[in-house]
Amino acid sequence: MTDAELFGAGERSAVYRAIHARRDMRHFAPGAVDEAVLARLLEAAHAAPSVGLMQPWRLLRIRDRALRAAIAELVEAERQATAQAMGARGGEFLHLKVEGVRECAELLVAALAPDDGTLFGRRTLPQEMAVASVACAIQNLWLAARAENLGLGWVSLFEPAALAALLRLPAGARPLAILCLGPVAEFYPRPLLELTGWRQARPLAELVYEDRWPEAP
Amino acid sequence: MTDAELFGAGERSAVYRAIHARRDMRHFAPGAVDEAVLARLLEAAHAAPSVGLMQPWRLLRIRDRALRAAIAELVEAERQATAQAMGARGGEFLHLKVEGVRECAELLVAALAPDDGTLFGRRTLPQEMAVASVACAIQNLWLAARAENLGLGWVSLFEPAALAALLRLPAGARPLAILCLGPVAEFYPRPLLELTGWRQARPLAELVYEDRWPEAP
Repeated sequence: MTDAELFGAGERSAVYRAIHARRDMRHFAPGAVDEAVLARLLEAAHAAPSVGLMQPWRLLRIRDRALRAAIAELVEAERQATAQAMGARGGEFLHLKVEGVRECAELLVAALAPDDGTLFGRRTLPQEMAVASVACAIQNLWLAARAENLGLGWVSLFEPAALAALLRLPAGARPLAILCLGPVAEFYPRPLLELTGWRQARPLAELVYEDRWPEAP
Repeated sequence: MTDAELFGAGERSAVYRAIHARRDMRHFAPGAVDEAVLARLLEAAHAAPSVGLMQPWRLLRIRDRALRAAIAELVEAERQATAQAMGARGGEFLHLKVEGVRECAELLVAALAPDDGTLFGRRTLPQEMAVASVACAIQNLWLAARAENLGLGWVSLFEPAALAALLRLPAGARPLAILCLGPVAEFYPRPLLELTGWRQARPLAELVYEDRWPEAP
């Protein structure tokens, strides 16, 4: 490997820092996202891997305020539906802040394109591999946003058919994420769901196995 | 935001560099992955976002050489099946190097855990959001590997039921990726599928829309 290809210790630390300091943000501060910064973020998303190079991501930038308001209503409807479905914890759920659709500087929607028939690497798991490629693009955008000192939150509280209709998605396309992006006052020190006591994360050691899935105890 | 939270220009560049220099590697060089490095990479994967904090990823480290050989055979069978399904381009496909299962220093399998019933953020898209969380973990691992000057390749050429049986996955768990990890002689300057002329990537501008999906021309 040439020296030019090598990452040094400082660069390595920066990458790990972004990975560990990235948070799923729901609180946003006033301010805009610079156009040049937004362009870099979208290019970062677009640099993601995709199965068979199919690049199934489509990124919609929501600029129409009425459209943003309609999306916010759709998210609110799903928030209520989720609370209903949760039963006993529904009340507690409704007290959490689970989205920042109205407050964030920029609202994006990431959608899966209609299937283009790519077979390479997806003969057996076509839907999963396409979704995974879009998710990798979003994760790239998320890490780049953190490095730009901007917050991003992935909101998945929506009825896909309703959001698809609102955005006039063609048959076969599916929205996967409403992305709230923008300046934040601070980044949560730990995942918000942990800070609010909703759920605690499990340690890595419980999720790494050697060779085969362990037998149930 | 405190100064301690801010990313500086050098750190920001390093994050973008990892995002743009990351490649889906199929060619590996001899050599091992240091245990401390592997531990950092797995922690990077585990730092991924997950819907409702469900952390649905399970990471299997394949150390048994016979098991690795069995996985390689399974990938080869799927490679042949894919070539068959491709028809006219099947022969060309068989000339591409599409995996490095036997040569890579470390072989990992990333699997989706059985559904734990998490409703938060996945009432309407339960399967997609769980798959997306695993993909985000893999993308973290991928970027961290690039920063460690290690190559990683995501191989999705396998029959999931056969791989699940080999790894004794419980009902409801599904393998999503065979991950080849290790030293490489060099990183491809562009995606290998572009270099080999299999397919050319589309420019970002074609995949970014404003407000709504554009009408067909």
